[in-house]
Amino acid sequence: MNRPHRLVLFFLLFQVALLPARALVRIFDTDYPALTEKITRKGLTENYAFSILSKLTRLGPRLTGSPRAAAAVELMRQEMIELGLENVHLEPTVVGRWVRGEVEEARLVSSPLGTISLSICALGGSVPTPEEGISAKVAEVGSFEELKALGEKARGKIIFFNRPMDPTCIDTFQAYGKAAEQRVLGAVEAAKAGGVAALVRSLTLGESDFPHTGLMKYSPEVARLPSAAISTQGANILSRSLKSDPDLFLYLKTSCAALPPVTSYNVVGEIKGAEAPDEIILLGAHLDSWDLGEGAHDDGAGCAHVIEALRLLKSTDIRPKRTVRGVLFMDEEFGGTGGRDYARSDRRRGERNLVALESDRGGFLPVGFGVSGGDAVLEKVQRWHPLLQPLGILWIRPGGGGVDIGPLGESGTVLMGLVPDSQRYFDAHHCSQDVLAAVHPRELELGAIATAILGFLLAEEGI
Amino acid sequence: MNRPHRLVLFFLLFQVALLPARALVRIFDTDYPALTEKITRKGLTENYAFSILSKLTRLGPRLTGSPRAAAAVELMRQEMIELGLENVHLEPTVVGRWVRGEVEEARLVSSPLGTISLSICALGGSVPTPEEGISAKVAEVGSFEELKALGEKARGKIIFFNRPMDPTCIDTFQAYGKAAEQRVLGAVEAAKAGGVAALVRSLTLGESDFPHTGLMKYSPEVARLPSAAISTQGANILSRSLKSDPDLFLYLKTSCAALPPVTSYNVVGEIKGAEAPDEIILLGAHLDSWDLGEGAHDDGAGCAHVIEALRLLKSTDIRPKRTVRGVLFMDEEFGGTGGRDYARSDRRRGERNLVALESDRGGFLPVGFGVSGGDAVLEKVQRWHPLLQPLGILWIRPGGGGVDIGPLGESGTVLMGLVPDSQRYFDAHHCSQDVLAAVHPRELELGAIATAILGFLLAEEGI
Repeated sequence: MNRPHRLVLFFLLFQVALLPARALVRIFDTDYPALTEKITRKGLTENYAFSILSKLTRLGPRLTGSPRAAAAVELMRQEMIELGLENVHLEPTVVGRWVRGEVEEARLVSSPLGTISLSICALGGSVPTPEEGISAKVAEVGSFEELKALGEKARGKIIFFNRPMDPTCIDTFQAYGKAAEQRVLGAVEAAKAGGVAALVRSLTLGESDFPHTGLMKYSPEVARLPSAAISTQGANILSRSLKSDPDLFLYLKTSCAALPPVTSYNVVGEIKGAEAPDEIILLGAHLDSWDLGEGAHDDGAGCAHVIEALRLLKSTDIRPKRTVRGVLFMDEEFGGTGGRDYARSDRRRGERNLVALESDRGGFLPVGFGVSGGDAVLEKVQRWHPLLQPLGILWIRPGGGGVDIGPLGESGTVLMGLVPDSQRYFDAHHCSQDVLAAVHPRELELGAIATAILGFLLAEEGI
Repeated sequence: MNRPHRLVLFFLLFQVALLPARALVRIFDTDYPALTEKITRKGLTENYAFSILSKLTRLGPRLTGSPRAAAAVELMRQEMIELGLENVHLEPTVVGRWVRGEVEEARLVSSPLGTISLSICALGGSVPTPEEGISAKVAEVGSFEELKALGEKARGKIIFFNRPMDPTCIDTFQAYGKAAEQRVLGAVEAAKAGGVAALVRSLTLGESDFPHTGLMKYSPEVARLPSAAISTQGANILSRSLKSDPDLFLYLKTSCAALPPVTSYNVVGEIKGAEAPDEIILLGAHLDSWDLGEGAHDDGAGCAHVIEALRLLKSTDIRPKRTVRGVLFMDEEFGGTGGRDYARSDRRRGERNLVALESDRGGFLPVGFGVSGGDAVLEKVQRWHPLLQPLGILWIRPGGGGVDIGPLGESGTVLMGLVPDSQRYFDAHHCSQDVLAAVHPRELELGAIATAILGFLLAEEGI
């Protein structure tokens, strides 16, 4: 693409369609278009969301209960104080702890094929293998039904769950939702079938050699089997190898461990409302991450969205009618205790938690907002669409929320979610590739700006 | 983001909003929703657009007139034949040639500050510096008006055009349009002011140390000055240094050269129309690139969109009513001769070139289509929006086109353009970072699928 002369004309034509906000939204008291323009200019000039994320990711991964997670709590608390937020405080939550340990090994051993190393990682919450490792034959299945159909053939084997994420889902979260039961419940189903371990294809699209971790669960009714994820490349190699040598052995060794729970914290700070300070518009994200990578997209980006949105709102010098509160929740990935304890806390008494908006889908280009709470709420938010459209927010649809704010929803808080584009999300999700370099400063900032604008509108107009 | 259980419900809710196509578009003869679904599934399962781009970028950069550009012509011709396209042929176009040469150097020399190397690259079409280089004082300006206001103070100096791209433009092409005159006409304005060379801030957002090249022009009325781009990091260093030492010297050396023109080719292949083969729906992109990087986004991605769109259409086994033709134009970056010669060719006689749709804005997530040709055309295309919406195509707006298809527009062809998201585009544009690794397979494929679907609709329904 070249030729800037013709381009100028081309863009002028485009801009007519891009900027209906000023014309349409004089219906409100406040000059919202001027305000959103100011917020947008400041955001895109200073790109401060990326600075926040840089500081946060420099700490390394923030696994719940870990020293680095504690460092992240303190860093974000200080950041909130430095930005001049009010009522900055920590709210305690007791979180489980789990550590990966030093050893993660997998080898395929086959007479005709030789020995091939495979990239694996223990799943979060898994017990380790015995110290000498596990060596067993492998049963590959595409579903729990297939596993059940194997009957006695599964007994004594490592159960290899190899159903890929469906590449034809344009919303990659949908593909995730269709495949994730293998990771979460694979160990339970494998135990029921008499297997000795669960090995799960990494939840990512495409072929790469990075294993993706994530939470897995046990059932009190069956044995707790060691459970690991294998890279998609490794899964393809193993699957092909099984076709030519169904009797090959797989050697697995992990050294992960559960530790006693510790107290950690949700980090809270706000801009107090001028007229109804007890009515809360909550902007939320989670501060913990998995222990691979840097938790840059999941959910460092959400934390950056929240902090930067509050910074942008403070910079307007307009105190909103209702309180806009940022909450960085602890322990989304592991036990969800932060979100539950926040909702249950005595501090919530006397508060009216009107809306909670979560960002936990990465720092990619924001394209929409999901809004729960029924038709009237949806229609009200959709009326503000012209103010968000210039940022690239192209839809406001039913169905928003997030894990951390879910418990608030149970007592009537309207839940919303920022929705960035999802094409690249599962490349980084829960693996070593979730690093700062995978986040684009402008895409991240646009998410923060959109969050700031919707947060302000909610604080001014209510719901 | 974790908790797949709640996610499943969440996505089901989303999908209701995402898939209105099947319900809405039974108004046509063909079962378009079934067709678009088939194309989409095939595209996202096979990701062939990325395979095409891999082959193309493996050749290296494809500067017009270069041996590698000739290799790219042959590669794409063979690809079209292998895919079973009809009427595969080359159409000649005589293109200018320019080579960068081995030497590109810049050093800031200052008594108080010392000597600092700066990253530069010659601009496309520039004459070289004298063999011994140029050493001169520097006049920094933000605009041509500022340069004029300097009067005699500019004489004998290297004119340093340092107006940044405006970060507050959400459409980064708009920011490009506002800054690009410095690169294109900087040498002319510098010569008018009595300068000895033009040094232009790279046209990219943010700070990096990669210089971005691109076309520059001379005027027959003034001297032809050597003209180079400096990385934005280098520009910031130079600008800061000038503030503390306005009398610093800058040493510049380049060794670029113009060579005699050669004959190159546009590459053409098509799916012949069943009912009106002489009515052409053209899908276009340009095959040449700048000589830095691999021309992956600019415009290898467009070529991949075109070829993959044709492959997907062929796979449906429905021969469209009108001809769908792919044209990979040569020489967009340098002289634009490919587009002009294509429009003027005798081969166009007897053809009705109804529509030309260009992809030349990179391989990022497709978000819209620009459509020229007036209200009736726009409304017709907008009626097809429900078929494109599931792919993430969120708008169809007035104002589409592209450099290569522009000359066809002059004789009445309706012009359209695929518009991907622009946030990352100028990170890679015309510099060493425009490589395959900067392209995401699914984002690229979605552009190809959208192009295939719109191409097919145009071929079936006309305009």
